[in-house]
Parts: sequence; C-alpha cells; structure tokens
Amino acid sequence: MDGIKIATLGGGSSYTPELVEGFIKRYAELPVSELWLVDIPAGESKLHIVGELAKRMVEKAGLPIQIHMTLDRRKALEGADFVTTQLRVGGLAARMKDEQIPLSHHVIGQETNGPGGLFNAFRTIPVILEIAKEIRELCPDAWMINFTNPAGMVTEALLRYGGSPKAIGLCNVPIHMEMNIAKLLEAEPRRIRMDFAGLNHMVFGLNVYLDGIKVTKKVIDLLNSEEAAMTMQNITGVKWVPEFARALGVIPCPYHNYYYKTGEMLEHQLEEAKESGIRAEVVRKVEEELFQLYKDVNLDEKPVQLEQRGGAYYSDAACRLIHSIYNDKCDIQPVNTRNNGAIKGIPEDSAVEVSSVITGQGPKPIAMGELPVAISGLVQQIKSFERVAVEAAVTGDYGKALLAMAINPLVPSDTVAKQILDEMLEAHKAYLPQFYPSRLTTVKIDCKEKS
Amino acid sequence: MDGIKIATLGGGSSYTPELVEGFIKRYAELPVSELWLVDIPAGESKLHIVGELAKRMVEKAGLPIQIHMTLDRRKALEGADFVTTQLRVGGLAARMKDEQIPLSHHVIGQETNGPGGLFNAFRTIPVILEIAKEIRELCPDAWMINFTNPAGMVTEALLRYGGSPKAIGLCNVPIHMEMNIAKLLEAEPRRIRMDFAGLNHMVFGLNVYLDGIKVTKKVIDLLNSEEAAMTMQNITGVKWVPEFARALGVIPCPYHNYYYKTGEMLEHQLEEAKESGIRAEVVRKVEEELFQLYKDVNLDEKPVQLEQRGGAYYSDAACRLIHSIYNDKCDIQPVNTRNNGAIKGIPEDSAVEVSSVITGQGPKPIAMGELPVAISGLVQQIKSFERVAVEAAVTGDYGKALLAMAINPLVPSDTVAKQILDEMLEAHKAYLPQFYPSRLTTVKIDCKEKS
Amino acid sequence: MDGIKIATLGGGSSYTPELVEGFIKRYAELPVSELWLVDIPAGESKLHIVGELAKRMVEKAGLPIQIHMTLDRRKALEGADFVTTQLRVGGLAARMKDEQIPLSHHVIGQETNGPGGLFNAFRTIPVILEIAKEIRELCPDAWMINFTNPAGMVTEALLRYGGSPKAIGLCNVPIHMEMNIAKLLEAEPRRIRMDFAGLNHMVFGLNVYLDGIKVTKKVIDLLNSEEAAMTMQNITGVKWVPEFARALGVIPCPYHNYYYKTGEMLEHQLEEAKESGIRAEVVRKVEEELFQLYKDVNLDEKPVQLEQRGGAYYSDAACRLIHSIYNDKCDIQPVNTRNNGAIKGIPEDSAVEVSSVITGQGPKPIAMGELPVAISGLVQQIKSFERVAVEAAVTGDYGKALLAMAINPLVPSDTVAKQILDEMLEAHKAYLPQFYPSRLTTVKIDCKEKS
Amino acid sequence: MDGIKIATLGGGSSYTPELVEGFIKRYAELPVSELWLVDIPAGESKLHIVGELAKRMVEKAGLPIQIHMTLDRRKALEGADFVTTQLRVGGLAARMKDEQIPLSHHVIGQETNGPGGLFNAFRTIPVILEIAKEIRELCPDAWMINFTNPAGMVTEALLRYGGSPKAIGLCNVPIHMEMNIAKLLEAEPRRIRMDFAGLNHMVFGLNVYLDGIKVTKKVIDLLNSEEAAMTMQNITGVKWVPEFARALGVIPCPYHNYYYKTGEMLEHQLEEAKESGIRAEVVRKVEEELFQLYKDVNLDEKPVQLEQRGGAYYSDAACRLIHSIYNDKCDIQPVNTRNNGAIKGIPEDSAVEVSSVITGQGPKPIAMGELPVAISGLVQQIKSFERVAVEAAVTGDYGKALLAMAINPLVPSDTVAKQILDEMLEAHKAYLPQFYPSRLTTVKIDCKEKS
Repeated sequence: MDGIKIATLGGGSSYTPELVEGFIKRYAELPVSELWLVDIPAGESKLHIVGELAKRMVEKAGLPIQIHMTLDRRKALEGADFVTTQLRVGGLAARMKDEQIPLSHHVIGQETNGPGGLFNAFRTIPVILEIAKEIRELCPDAWMINFTNPAGMVTEALLRYGGSPKAIGLCNVPIHMEMNIAKLLEAEPRRIRMDFAGLNHMVFGLNVYLDGIKVTKKVIDLLNSEEAAMTMQNITGVKWVPEFARALGVIPCPYHNYYYKTGEMLEHQLEEAKESGIRAEVVRKVEEELFQLYKDVNLDEKPVQLEQRGGAYYSDAACRLIHSIYNDKCDIQPVNTRNNGAIKGIPEDSAVEVSSVITGQGPKPIAMGELPVAISGLVQQIKSFERVAVEAAVTGDYGKALLAMAINPLVPSDTVAKQILDEMLEAHKAYLPQFYPSRLTTVKIDCKEKS
Repeated sequence: MDGIKIATLGGGSSYTPELVEGFIKRYAELPVSELWLVDIPAGESKLHIVGELAKRMVEKAGLPIQIHMTLDRRKALEGADFVTTQLRVGGLAARMKDEQIPLSHHVIGQETNGPGGLFNAFRTIPVILEIAKEIRELCPDAWMINFTNPAGMVTEALLRYGGSPKAIGLCNVPIHMEMNIAKLLEAEPRRIRMDFAGLNHMVFGLNVYLDGIKVTKKVIDLLNSEEAAMTMQNITGVKWVPEFARALGVIPCPYHNYYYKTGEMLEHQLEEAKESGIRAEVVRKVEEELFQLYKDVNLDEKPVQLEQRGGAYYSDAACRLIHSIYNDKCDIQPVNTRNNGAIKGIPEDSAVEVSSVITGQGPKPIAMGELPVAISGLVQQIKSFERVAVEAAVTGDYGKALLAMAINPLVPSDTVAKQILDEMLEAHKAYLPQFYPSRLTTVKIDCKEKS
Repeated sequence: MDGIKIATLGGGSSYTPELVEGFIKRYAELPVSELWLVDIPAGESKLHIVGELAKRMVEKAGLPIQIHMTLDRRKALEGADFVTTQLRVGGLAARMKDEQIPLSHHVIGQETNGPGGLFNAFRTIPVILEIAKEIRELCPDAWMINFTNPAGMVTEALLRYGGSPKAIGLCNVPIHMEMNIAKLLEAEPRRIRMDFAGLNHMVFGLNVYLDGIKVTKKVIDLLNSEEAAMTMQNITGVKWVPEFARALGVIPCPYHNYYYKTGEMLEHQLEEAKESGIRAEVVRKVEEELFQLYKDVNLDEKPVQLEQRGGAYYSDAACRLIHSIYNDKCDIQPVNTRNNGAIKGIPEDSAVEVSSVITGQGPKPIAMGELPVAISGLVQQIKSFERVAVEAAVTGDYGKALLAMAINPLVPSDTVAKQILDEMLEAHKAYLPQFYPSRLTTVKIDCKEKS
Repeated sequence: MDGIKIATLGGGSSYTPELVEGFIKRYAELPVSELWLVDIPAGESKLHIVGELAKRMVEKAGLPIQIHMTLDRRKALEGADFVTTQLRVGGLAARMKDEQIPLSHHVIGQETNGPGGLFNAFRTIPVILEIAKEIRELCPDAWMINFTNPAGMVTEALLRYGGSPKAIGLCNVPIHMEMNIAKLLEAEPRRIRMDFAGLNHMVFGLNVYLDGIKVTKKVIDLLNSEEAAMTMQNITGVKWVPEFARALGVIPCPYHNYYYKTGEMLEHQLEEAKESGIRAEVVRKVEEELFQLYKDVNLDEKPVQLEQRGGAYYSDAACRLIHSIYNDKCDIQPVNTRNNGAIKGIPEDSAVEVSSVITGQGPKPIAMGELPVAISGLVQQIKSFERVAVEAAVTGDYGKALLAMAINPLVPSDTVAKQILDEMLEAHKAYLPQFYPSRLTTVKIDCKEKS
C-alpha cells in the first residue's frame, strides 16, 4: 500500500471524531490509507462506538481510508508512519483523585504541572516509554505525536529516557490562545501569529502579530478590558490586575492563573468542589453524553458538542502537525520539542513548548533568546520540577518523588508534600509499578485510555 | 600616613564594637590607622556612644588606631581604602512595617527576599548608589564592603547600575551555617569547609568537608537527627522532613524555611505576632539594652550580649574579608559578587553568593557548574525577582514594582500583590523619592542607619 | 503615495538591473512605487547608464514603478520603506590593493575574511554606520538590507555599534550552494532546502533536504565525485580530499577553500597573478563590457552576461528578502542577523549567517544548537577575528588593527601582519579617516560605489 | 602501613630524581612511605639505574621512604594513593618521527597540539585509558596525576572516555612562565601570582600580580624590552612585535610562537634540522649524558644538569600538587581539569588548563568568565582539534584522524594532511592498535616509557 498508516493509541477516546474529521478534510495533501484505533480491553466498547462513527464519517466523505479497531497494539504499530497517543492511565477516576487529594490538603491539584500532574506523570510515563520501545522495534521511522498529558513531562521523558528523537508533544492551549485573541481583534485566526515560548501549560505568547505587524500591547490592553477573555473552558474566568498584565508585557496562558493567582484559584476550587463536584466530575458527565450521541447510527460527522470539551482542537492540531511533516511544509506551529538552544537558560536537551518550523524532519525551534526576566524564573522553576518529576517517574525513587512534590510552587511545605505524596501513592498504587515493584505484572493490563 | 583608612557608614550601629574588635585582633597583619564612623544626624547620639566605646577598646589594646566620629560622609570617604556600609534606611520602624503590612494580608514579610525585602531594597538602593557615586569621586580605588540588607539586591544594583566593580556584598548566614555544622560534627570551625552557591539568603552548602574529606551526607543525617540544628536566632526552629532533606542532598540555609515551609512559617509568624510582637519588636528591645551597656564607661570590650543578635559575625566577616584583600591571602570565603560564569544559568553579570578566592584584586568565584536540578529552579526564580526588583528600585516604575511583588514566591496572587504594594508605598513614602519624584530633597536627610 | 519606496545606495552598480528585474517580476505581491538609485559624484555617469536601463525595463514591463536617480542620499532615504546598500568604498582600485598587497607577502588577500577583507571593513564600516545614522533620522522604520562586503563584519558593526536592529546582511553564497546542489541532484532548486549555519563566507550547509528528505551524505558523495562541483565563478575549482569531505559531514562553502586548502589556494593565486592579473582585474574588464551593453538603448532587460559575475543572485536575493518581510511570508532564507542563541557558543548579540524564518518583523533564526565539533573551532576563530576587526574599524586603534591582522588564520605571523598592515594603511589612507583623524572631511566625498 | 603509597608509571624516566627530591623535601607534611617505580621490560635497565639513585637519595635524607622497582604495574597500583604517569609510548624514536615527518612536508611537527602531538595522542591515549581502567579496579580512590604529553588531549580523553573524574593533567609551562616573569620583575617567585586560562600548551596568563597588585601591563612591556625573555629551553627565542603583544594584553605561553609566528618557527625548524638535528635528537643526547651521571654510585642527589631539560619542574609540580591534595591546602595551581564553566564557551565537560584551588577533593577551577575576544578564537580552534583528535584516538576511525589533522591550524590543506597522516600511520603502525586492529596483542608489550 502506498498511503499513510496512522496508529492512534487510546483510539476509543471521545476526541477521536475530531481526528477523523481532520484527516478527512486534509485528504488531498495527506492521503491516509489506514487509521488504526487501538485501545485496551477495558475500553473496548467505547472503541467500538467511536470506530463505527469513524467508518460512517469516512464513508460519507467518500474516501478510501480504512478504519481498523484493535486491542492488539503491536499489530497497529507495525509499519506505521505516524503514531498518536492520547492515553489516560487510570482513566477519569484517577484524574479525580489527582484533584481531590491535594484539595483535601488545601492545595490545588492541577492535572499537568501541579501535584496532580506529578501523579499523572508517574502513571503515564512508564506506559509511554514502553510504547516508545515498541515503536523503535516495529516502526522505527514513525513520528510519535503525543497529546497525552502531562505533555511537557511526557516529552521530557521521551527525549531524555526514551531514546525518542522523533517524539513531539502537542497541546491545544496555544491554539486556543490564538483563537481567543483573533476573536478579540475581530480578525480571522489565520491573520494572527504568535511567538510562543515556555513549557507545556506554562507557555507565554511573547508577541502577537496581526498580518505581520506587532500588536502585543494592544492585545494586552484588550485582554485587560475584556471580561475573562483569555480563559478556556477548563479554567475559571479570572482577570489579571491590569498594571500587572501590562508590566508582564507578554501573554500568559490560562494555566498561569494557578501561579499568578494561586490564592483565588484555590478558593475557587474549594467553592466549586462544595457546590457542583470538581472539574473531573463535570468532564465525566460530558463524556457520557458524547458517547450517547456517537452511538446514533445516523450520526456521520463530528458533533458540535465535542467542541465544548476542554480538549477541543487537540486532534485537529495533531492532523495539522502530521500534515506539515508529511509535506515538509515549513510552517510555524507551537510544539513540545527539544530546546536545542531556542530558549536561553533551559538545558538544550530538555523539552520546551516553542514556535517551531515544521519540516519533513520534524520541528526546528525558532531561537527566542532570553525570556523576559520576570517570567524566566517561574519557567525555570517548573522545568526544575519537571526534571525531578521525570527522574522520579522513571526510577520510582521515593525521595525524588517527595523532592518533586515539595519544590512544586503550589505546595506550601515539605510536610504537606509528604502527606499528599503518601496518600496519592496509596491511592494510585495499582498504576505505579515503579514505586511498587512487585506489582508490575498486574498493572500493565490495567491502564485505561484517555477519554 | 601609611596605615589603612576605613570608612564605616552607619557607624552608630550596635554592631560596630564587633567590627572594632575584628580590627584590633588582626592589627599585626592589617594595620588600620584610621577608622571613620559616619552616621546621619538622627543617629548622632548612638554614634557618640559607640564611638566612645570604640576608643576605649582601642586604648585597652594599646594600638595606634584613630577613631573618628562624623556626620560628614564626604570627609570620611576621602582617600579611604575600604568602605563598609551597614545602613538601615528608615530604621527599625521601617523594618517593622516591612513585616507587619504583608502579614496583615497573610503573607510573610521576609526582610530580604520577600515583600518586606522588596521595600527594603526600594529604600536602600538609591542611597547606596549615591554612596557608590561619592566613592568613585572621593576614593575610587577603595573596596566597598556592603553588609546592608538586602545584600543580594544591593550587590546586584551596585554591579549593574552602580558602575561598582569593587563592591562586595557580605552576609553572616554562611558563617553561621559553618559554625553550626562544626558544632554538630564536634570539630573546630577551621576544620570545616563548605562549597557555597546560590544567592543571598538563598544560599546552599553544596558540600561540606571535614579536613578536606567530603562529609555532606553525614551532615544531612545529623541535621535530620538534631532538633532545629541549623536554625539561627532570627528564624524559628523547624525541622525538615528527613526524606526531603536527604533527597535535596545539599545543605539549605535557614531562610529556605520561608520557601520550603511557607505554610508553617506563616502560621508561626501569625502566632508570634499575636503573642509577643514580631521579630522587629524583639530586635528593638535588644538594641536598647545593648546601648545601655555601651554607655558604661568601664566597658572596654565587645559585650557577649551582642552575639545573641541575628547579625552576629557580620562585622567579623567584614574584617576577615578586608584582611584577605589587603594581604592578597587567596583564602576561600563566601561573598556576594559578580557571577562570571561560576553558577551555570545565572547571568554572568548578576550577583551571586558563592565561595570565592579572596585576592588582592577582590573575590574570584570558584566555578560551581550547574546547581543540582531540584534547587536551581528556586534560585532562578529569586534571581528573576531580584532583577525586576532592582530595576523597579532604580527607575521608580510602578508596573515593575508590582511585577516584582507579584512574582515573589511568597505572594499568592497579583491582586494581593497590588494591595500590599499600595499600602507599603504609602507607608514608606518618605523614603521612596524614586516613586514620588517631587519629594526628592526631603528624603535625603532622612535615611537612618542600621542599628 | 501608497506603494513601497526603495532606496538603493550604490545604485550605479552593474548589479542594479538584476534588482530591477527582481522587483518587476514580484510586482503583484510587492508593489514598489518608487526606486531611488543613489550614488556619489564619481559614480554619476554609471548611475545614469544604469538608471536609464532601469527605466526601459520598467516601461517594457508596463509597471508604475518610478525610477529616480540622485546624488542626494538624504532625499532618497526620506520615508523609505527599505534601504539596500551595495557600496564599494574605494572602488575596484581599492579592492585590487586588498588582494595585491597581501599577495606580495605570500599571503592570500581574501576580500571578505582575510587581510583584504579587514581593510575592506576598515573602509566600509564608518560609511555604513553613517548611513545607519541617517536612516534612524530619516526613515527609522525602514529595513536596511546590506549586501556590501564584508557582509559579516558590516552586520556585526551595525548590530553592535550601529543601533540598527533592523539591519540584515545578505550574501549570495548560500543561494549558489543550493543551486549547484540542485544541479547535482538533477532537481528543481525549489525542491532543495538546506540548514545553513556559520558566518558570512564561512557558512556551512549542515544538512541538505530533497523534498524534505535528508540527502546530506548523498550530496557529499556527489560533490566528491564531480569535478569542482561546488565552486562559484570567483573561486578556483579545487576538489576536497574525499575522506576529509565525508568526515567533515557537512557542506562547506567555496570560501572554505581558503582555510582548508590554504597552501593550494596561495599557489594558485600566485600563478594567476603572474599570468593574467588577479581576480579584481578580471572583474574590472567584465564591468567595462557590461556597461557597454547597458548603454545600448535597445536593451530593455537584464543581459545574460550579468549572471557570469561573481555577484549574481545577490540582488535577486535582496528582492526575495524584501518580498518576504513585506508579506510576512515566514519562509526560510539564510541571512546575516543577530545570533540570539541560534548557534551555540557564538555571542547572542553577534551576527551569524543562519537559516531564518523571514517575518514581517524581520528574520528569526532557527535554533541550530551546537555546530559539529570539527567546524566550530574555525567558525569561532573567524568570529574572534571579525569582532576585533570591527572594534578596530570603529575606533581606529592601531593595536587592535594589528591584533585583527595577526590572529587572522591566513596570516603566518605577527611580523608579517605588521608589514602588511603598515603597507595597507598607507595605501588606503584616503579612505581611513578613523586611522588618520585629520583627514576626515576629504574622505567623505571620495567613497565609491560597488560596481 | 600508614604512610602514602605512590605509583610512578614510567618510573625509569630521567625526570624521576626530581620527583624523588620533591617527596624528600616535603616529607614533613607529605609522609610518603612507598614509592613504586614501574616500567616496561624495554626500560628495565634505566629503571634500575634511576631506582638505585632514588635509594641513595632517600638514604642520604635519612627518611623511611621505601623505593620499589617493578615491571608489574598491577602490583604497583594496588592500593596506591596517588598514581603519576610519565610515559612516552614509542620512546624518543617515535617522537623524532613526530617531528621529522611533518617537517619533510614543510609543516611544523609540534609534539603537543600539532600533527606530531596528534600521533603522540594516538599512541598514548589507548595506553592511558587502559591504566585508568586498572586504577578503577586496583586503587579506585587514587588520584591520577598525569604529566604524559600531550597532557591536554590525554586529560580530555580521561575525562570523557576514561570514567576518570580523579585524573589531573599537569604541565610545567605555567611554572616556567611564572619563574621567568619573577626574574624579569626581580622578585621572589612566591610573590608572583598569575591567572592562567586556556588549554595545555595553549595557556595564557590573563593577569600577573606582584604581591597581589596587578602588574600585567608592566610585565608585557618588560617582555617586549627583554631579548627572548619568555622562552623556555625547548622553544627558539623569538620576540613578539611589541604593538601586537600590547594589544593582545595577556601573556602568551612559549608554544604560542607556533601559532602567532608560524612562518618564522617553520623556517627556524628547517634551519635547525639541517644544522644540528632536530630537537628530539638533542634531547636524546642529553638523556644519554644524564643516565651516565645517574650510574655514578657516589651521586646521591638530583644533578643540576637535569634542570636544563625542557621538562624541568614537571616532577616538582607533581609533588606540589599531591602535597596540596593530601593536605587540603586550598592553594592555587594551574592544572588541566574539567572546565565546569570556568572558561566561557568551552564545553563544561572538556579539559582546560586553568588556575584552580587545590583541595582534598581535587582541583576546583576559578571562574575566569569570557576569554579576551582576540585569544578565544584560537583556543576554541585548538579545543575543536583536541576533541576530534581524542575521538579518533579512541575509535581508530581514519576519517576522524584525517579531520583532526586537516583542521589543525599548522596544517595548510586537506591534501597535505592526508599525506602526513598516511606516512605517520605507517611509521607508527606498531603503536596504533586501534587503527590496525589485528595487531592488538603485539603492541601492548611494546610501549616505551617517557625518558
């Protein structure tokens, strides 16, 4: 066969229809011939629902894209050109614990670079590294497009411990930022360009351009004047102190609220937890509704409701990235990749999230030089956290895990760090073979898809 | 005259007797012929008390050291070989506000690198830069030994904005750490050596050596086993979580409690404020008692009570430093100096606190390479804060000031940052000409000595 | 007027028809309304010849581009959107001395980064910095596109001493390399992409891609097998030792012959000097013939003979660059720009020649990381030379000039350096006001265009 | 036994009496109890002669230092505290070829960082790495003090490929520079201090201090005025162009003549070769005479004639270094050690020659920051050469070997590089098992001592 083979791990995810739509609309320049949706036994029924919808979508489009559904990961990987990963080890249940346990100690959970994210990394990284190993064996030339969270630490692990120079981490936060700003400027998104630099969920828009003209200051003013303009669906709409935003001089991402508004965010989460269950609970309900929709045999396109989920645009970003690699398009996209000197002060072999030229040989980051002084400290601190966290995730060393937890800026002390750590280690035991070596075999079959 | 001329700005400080003692005991190798104690009008009576005690001390030692007391700074600086600065602009009253105002917002004040330290920097840096200018004019070859807090930011300001390559910042924290560790190891202090690296009040002992043999791990274990071993008088005795201390692998300084135990430290300060007045209040009382002692015409040596103040060893450290410069001794001392590549990731032209070879041409820092990952993030974040703070102190820019306050790791949000900032700007108005340009003239005569 | 205003300094150059052709063929996307050709009195007749040809070309194309010819630089600069500079201070006569004097000491002259280039820099940099000053005054938003040699040092001077962040240096060497390689691969040039990194005339192709696929090794083998494949018209066709070329692993530029084949190149130049006059003499003859052609009132397009000059593609490269800036095209072009961390080990604020994304805000270099070990030493050495040379050019300091000459890798000793330096200072006296301060006024009117 | 055990590999060297003298005079603070002189069978008779002289010296001093002579390296290494290496693989015969073969192509041989040094590295590095492996096995806590040339590349190999963090490279060039300068200043050597930075035989004195006062400029002037003041016995006395020396602003080492006076040095060597045999021949004669002296049973001290050899002070430098490590003396000595950020722009894990604090845990380099621009290029180029050379030495890769040869600044072209390389590979075949794998066993027994 001559077309492109895609393997999508965690294929039973509710996001998959967006991915399928993305391939359909790019078919002319990105001729996918096989899309393999892979999942684990526990996700089989969802995989079936999503897979059948995918088939109806392809059929409607009249394209020769074969949809495969399988529980056999190796078969899917064999000879693949691109592998996308969208796992959630432990499923939504684990995510809920990631948020609830820290919150019970009056600490924000933060599923990517907070205490919750730390455990997400502990559960996910060993699974991802195992997949990376299989890729090296079964499809060594494939690009691995990872949009499994915490994407920053996962990419760091793949680059430093996974022997995976062809791994790219992807996030939908920058796209959302661009879209929101386009709306503020009342311009088509394609007229907007931003210089992104930082880390995953810790990325800044250093500059905004409209038709190539710098409009950063104007955008900051608009953001100040608008109510909660920059928020995404999964972050509470809070406003920056205008003088602070102006002095910062760059566009923060929504997740910066956790660091520049720690107090308010904590209050908000405690409130929310009381009233309506926390975020993960909300997500679970949306999920259920989506799968009800997907089951409808008359549905043959991505339903609009999917866009209301926090993860919207993720899959489309993946298609866009694959498209540019396949066609050596040399356009600019923000991705998580090896720093290679693009951001001064971050190790060259660490992962950063940075505007990069997307070539047939993968992303080439644009040299951003030194970050503005005021933001570089926080970025460095999170990178420190990420590096220690990844080391702990790979080694299963208790001390390193405690260290990572204690140096996280959301955690108020080593004492609290130890309490949260111990509770979470116990709660996630089943998914942490590296910390509980004897349980290794049981765990492997138990990791769930991101959905 | 052939001997050495020393000018001590803030000479009416209660620490001065330690300085005098330091010069007396080193006289053979460091022949000081003139010691000029300078202060401002408001400090004249203290200057007189301290000066007379100094005269009695010198007389008792039978040394030809002339003691001068003056309010004329220029006269004191003229032709000086070394200038020491131990100012406190605004005096203890200002320091109390530095601690109380943040605390009223449930934020730790922290007089060096917290919100309190920020305002200490705002008050102090303009005065210090003015002195630096006079030094360039009146004694351009003199070394400026600064132990005015916040020593880190003051040194940063002197190096970046003061045209002062011959300025050195000094702190007594490292000496205290060495002495405490010597006690733990039951060894003479001179057998202990430590590799210090970091920033002022954010310094780590990367390694401890006993007779040249590495004993770092042993010391960490001893610190874990001892009750509150590393604490200094001005920090509450708290214990690290042992697994955390071991995983950290280096010796933190007492001020790290504020960052690794933020929650507990805040609780403690709130308690303390209720019960017995805060730290500054305590200091004020000790002060009063000391000056009562100094007045005694029969006293002709440094009273032991002085050693109980937080600032003990400061002045002796200054003498030791001057001694090594004067004699090109090439011994190793921890000082605040230009990084020059010694600590990777910190700008070369920023101030760091680092073990340095003390030569006749000043300190040459020892190359420490990359800091351990787990600590580098926090160090970078404080350096970010310091750089923005210094910029605000020099320019009087409100936005920069807010930025510095908001990115300080002790401050929970930009909203709280603005509240604290506005209250403190108002409270310290009289000492902040750069933020209130029209008041410039009034301010200059009003800055008080550190005492 | 709404269109774009271009000011071309050195407009009487024989290259100008290529520039005019470039603007004509890009008119749809780059609507140039005014092209101001500027020259000095000594170049007036050439300016007239070239300007009239330009008018005929525009007329033939039927485009509303106004051609202006002037000796009044300020008038041309006023309100310009882009300024191109193609000067040759001292004209061809000076260039001949740049080559002959070193050669008389058995040293290669090398008009860009050899002893000849050093004096080219000494003559050119003061003139360029003066132009930069006028640009800041008369058209501060204009981009300055410099293709005056030595482009590397001129860009270094503009970035470090010219307060000219909007200056870009341009060279035709990379384009020639791509075209030659395209020919070797029997592919359309647009299918080829190369990662360029290094310095001007010291640039390497780190990788070659054909349709996005890496073909670097294949190209190196082809270069080994072909006779003199990579040579350009102005460099003798010599072949690399195949094992050397393979071990180098990157594509050198033609000028690398001077450094990796110093012996042969010197022999060759000595031969050539005997037989047929040196390169500059050849160039002069080609020049004369070209202007004969240009005078023909029936000629209304760029004559093919122009492509045989060493400088071919220069002007087209300038049009391409202007086009991409004007349209925020974000394509990749090799330019001389601020390093900004793109090449590790080169100062961030130094000029490098590097593949960059060309945006509406100018070039953003792509992060190339560390250069291969084997080439980084030579690149660093030339950058050292360039920096010292620029310092000498700006200050007129004899010692710095001697230093630059002596550390140039083509110069065999400090003794020979001094001999060449003294002879050349004398020979170029009229164009070196900085070294002969009293002559300042005479010089200004005497600088000639590049032609 | 309680004393210190020293193993001296290449113990039959003519330098050994200096080493013995060094230990004798430092006995009070450095109680050596066993000195093991090791050599290979071919060196047995010299070992015997030197060993017996050592015994007489120790006896005369009345010290309980046991002298052991052995061909069994493992026995000597077992439990050693310090290992010194002073090998010369291939002996003087090989050294002669290192100089003669390049010279026959009109290229300077230069036994340390020229083409000769390259082959010295090829012969030596495999042997040294084998010794390093034995050290890890038999005396893992020992410090390895290497004064085998080429010391720079050998240290680079030990640090990067030898798993030898406790290896230090030593050279006598800096000591000679200090002594010569002391003589010029008519001061006791101990009053002089210099900041050394660079690479082995490529080291610069950045500053000179007399009693802690900077006298760099004065020294440069003295060097200019004196005839051949800085020369050592093994380099021809040439003078710098005074303006060049002043503009350089730092003190070059004698070996810089090869790079800043390449032309003259080559002429000189060609002359010398004609007249009196080259340097190695001279050395051989001195050697023979020394051993005649050593045989004299009445000789019981180091003969003065030894000081006339180029290697004088080498062994004393080794004793001084061992003394400071053993006593955690924290004095400053120039050594070859891991850069660790001390010199900006050189990789952190590369070897540099730099003034370092000598502690009980080895050398800690002093942060020197950025080298002066004018010298950094050459230093970088030699470091490039060294790194490629070491890679070739370790892998035996022909292409890498050619690359190293061709990028050496003394070699005029890749063509000449290949000629010299091929001849030298053939000439040294017996000592290059890595390039001729099948010969591996024969070679091992054939490597000769440095003598």
